Amino acid sequence: MDFNKKSISLHLKRRGKIEIRPKVPLKDKIDIALSYTPGVGAVSKAIGKNKKLSFTLTNRANQVAIVSDGTAILGLGHLGPEAAMPVMEGKAILFKAFADIDAFPLCINSTDVDEVVNFCKLIEPSFGGINLEDISAPRCFEILSRLEKELKIPVFHDDQDGTAIVVLAALINACKLTKRNIKKIKVAVNGAGAAGIAITRLLIAYGIKDIILSDSQGAIHAGRKDLNPIKKKIALKTNSKKISGSLSEVFKGRDAFIGVSKAGLVTSDMVESMNPKAIVFAMANPVPEIMPSLAIKAGAAIVGTGRSDFPNQINNALVFPGIFRGLLDGKNKKVTDKIKIKAAEAIARSVKPRKDKILPLLLEKKTTPAISRVIKNN
Amino acid sequence: MDFNKKSISLHLKRRGKIEIRPKVPLKDKIDIALSYTPGVGAVSKAIGKNKKLSFTLTNRANQVAIVSDGTAILGLGHLGPEAAMPVMEGKAILFKAFADIDAFPLCINSTDVDEVVNFCKLIEPSFGGINLEDISAPRCFEILSRLEKELKIPVFHDDQDGTAIVVLAALINACKLTKRNIKKIKVAVNGAGAAGIAITRLLIAYGIKDIILSDSQGAIHAGRKDLNPIKKKIALKTNSKKISGSLSEVFKGRDAFIGVSKAGLVTSDMVESMNPKAIVFAMANPVPEIMPSLAIKAGAAIVGTGRSDFPNQINNALVFPGIFRGLLDGKNKKVTDKIKIKAAEAIARSVKPRKDKILPLLLEKKTTPAISRVIKNN
Repeated sequence: MDFNKKSISLHLKRRGKIEIRPKVPLKDKIDIALSYTPGVGAVSKAIGKNKKLSFTLTNRANQVAIVSDGTAILGLGHLGPEAAMPVMEGKAILFKAFADIDAFPLCINSTDVDEVVNFCKLIEPSFGGINLEDISAPRCFEILSRLEKELKIPVFHDDQDGTAIVVLAALINACKLTKRNIKKIKVAVNGAGAAGIAITRLLIAYGIKDIILSDSQGAIHAGRKDLNPIKKKIALKTNSKKISGSLSEVFKGRDAFIGVSKAGLVTSDMVESMNPKAIVFAMANPVPEIMPSLAIKAGAAIVGTGRSDFPNQINNALVFPGIFRGLLDGKNKKVTDKIKIKAAEAIARSVKPRKDKILPLLLEKKTTPAISRVIKNN
Repeated sequence: MDFNKKSISLHLKRRGKIEIRPKVPLKDKIDIALSYTPGVGAVSKAIGKNKKLSFTLTNRANQVAIVSDGTAILGLGHLGPEAAMPVMEGKAILFKAFADIDAFPLCINSTDVDEVVNFCKLIEPSFGGINLEDISAPRCFEILSRLEKELKIPVFHDDQDGTAIVVLAALINACKLTKRNIKKIKVAVNGAGAAGIAITRLLIAYGIKDIILSDSQGAIHAGRKDLNPIKKKIALKTNSKKISGSLSEVFKGRDAFIGVSKAGLVTSDMVESMNPKAIVFAMANPVPEIMPSLAIKAGAAIVGTGRSDFPNQINNALVFPGIFRGLLDGKNKKVTDKIKIKAAEAIARSVKPRKDKILPLLLEKKTTPAISRVIKNN
């Protein structure tokens, strides 16, 4: 059976991937009376008097909503909320397996920014945090920044924050291995969607000064007239020399390339035009911007992709379980740049880097406690 | 330790009552690749092409949202969404234990009818059904009837439908035991909130013609000027003789009393004024309208309450697991009167009634399959 068929058959057999189970006994009348009526009345009354008790008397403190509108599912685009469900169930099982967090998928029937924001405000009393997922750019930027202001529980957009954190972690170790001062490297980021914008923002926050971000029209610079407000804003903080032109122009003399764009956009010639011992993160999924073997042949010293079947998988699944474990345990209300940087540094520190292993593997469970520890104590 | 303290301590110890668990293995890279990326891409694509596949490739077909705005929590009133959480978690564990249904509590931050309706429309793609809970009257009537029209998944308001069904089941068996033709009995219902209105509607749909419904102002009849639209409508179908006055007036010559009102409203004198071998369901919680021992002393033949520590507990927890099991398995889109009546008859049939056991006990697990069978085949 081919791989896709195997996956569909697994989903069909179990009818999805999650279930909701009691964590209290229910074997006799007394159990029911304590967990349900009449006993639960005293619990409701207590919370009615002090709403904060919902974090200790219900599962709220360990509960995360995975909210998606299905507009940007994986690399597949806008397939609708029903089609987003299997991805969100997949995240939910990783949340439980890697961080013992109870995450529940809520795929909703609206793509309107106000409605998505309002939806998250409505569900706030039931959750300890919200993980936004697969929401298309540029809508996702407004949704996240409004929710960060309007909610009292932490909100994290995995496609933005998660990707940015894991890329920074990978870059820290890649620079270590190639003996670079990370703050002085020249970076090219390709793809100005949720991930590309968030990566660029975090690298700037980390102190990297020379970044050129490109989109499908070439290098983004303050002189371009076709930029949306988000790109316009980031143009002021990047590409200070206003380099224009196609991706191959941008590549010349760069130390690192970070691709969150499309299959096959990067050629051997482009990699050859980079500085020696170049770092190439070709993270387009499932087919990278350039295949690792080609990039290495063209002189790249370190190559990462989004895939688990190549070395150096750079995947946000390494990030979100630990981030939320830390946020929930530390009762943090906001995912600040400082938290993101601490998380990236913790991931980088959690592995002794080699050229073919700049990040811990997904299944090495040490990453979650490594991240959550630094966040909790923040 | 007293009972309330025991309940709070149980909730505190486990931090709530539910958890979300994977039902697929996650032990190696291949498991992750099949359940998450890249394998899940094929599943999303398939659902993107045919949304109905979300019922077979995700947990949707077994997933129910328990939606509350916290406006009418148990008998405690409007304590807010946070305080509703422990009750909804309690329902969720009963759903799983009695019907193997994955039910998730969503307690929301709005009491606006339009917003509650819109919220349920937003979450429709993630669920197979919606159980409304602890939403105050008369708002709950509009919310339920709008959702029944606007959603393609079944919606059930447990405080209305669940209570009505279990009361009809109890009444069927009580009439059997007292050798009455149920359609010819004279009934008094006290309490014109969610439960009282729904009970009256279902008894009418079942064919019972002589019902008097009372609220805190006494008997409801078409001549009263102080009725809200819901009560006005039901006044036209009940109390054809336009009997007016207090509850003690209404009691005279009734065969059955159904109380969903307040502690201690019913006196021995009132029960004595009923027809011989009277049926008294005093379901106010936690203290009934009249204590069972008093009612029996006053001549009642069969007495039921809402409590588990008296015989004949009349509790909607007997209903909702089986109803949803049947709705989900039978892919029913609406909870019609026919379905409600079939469910009540199935519950009544599932026990060999005695005066002190007119309904099956909560923990007898035969009720769920008895109900679901008749609904599924509808």
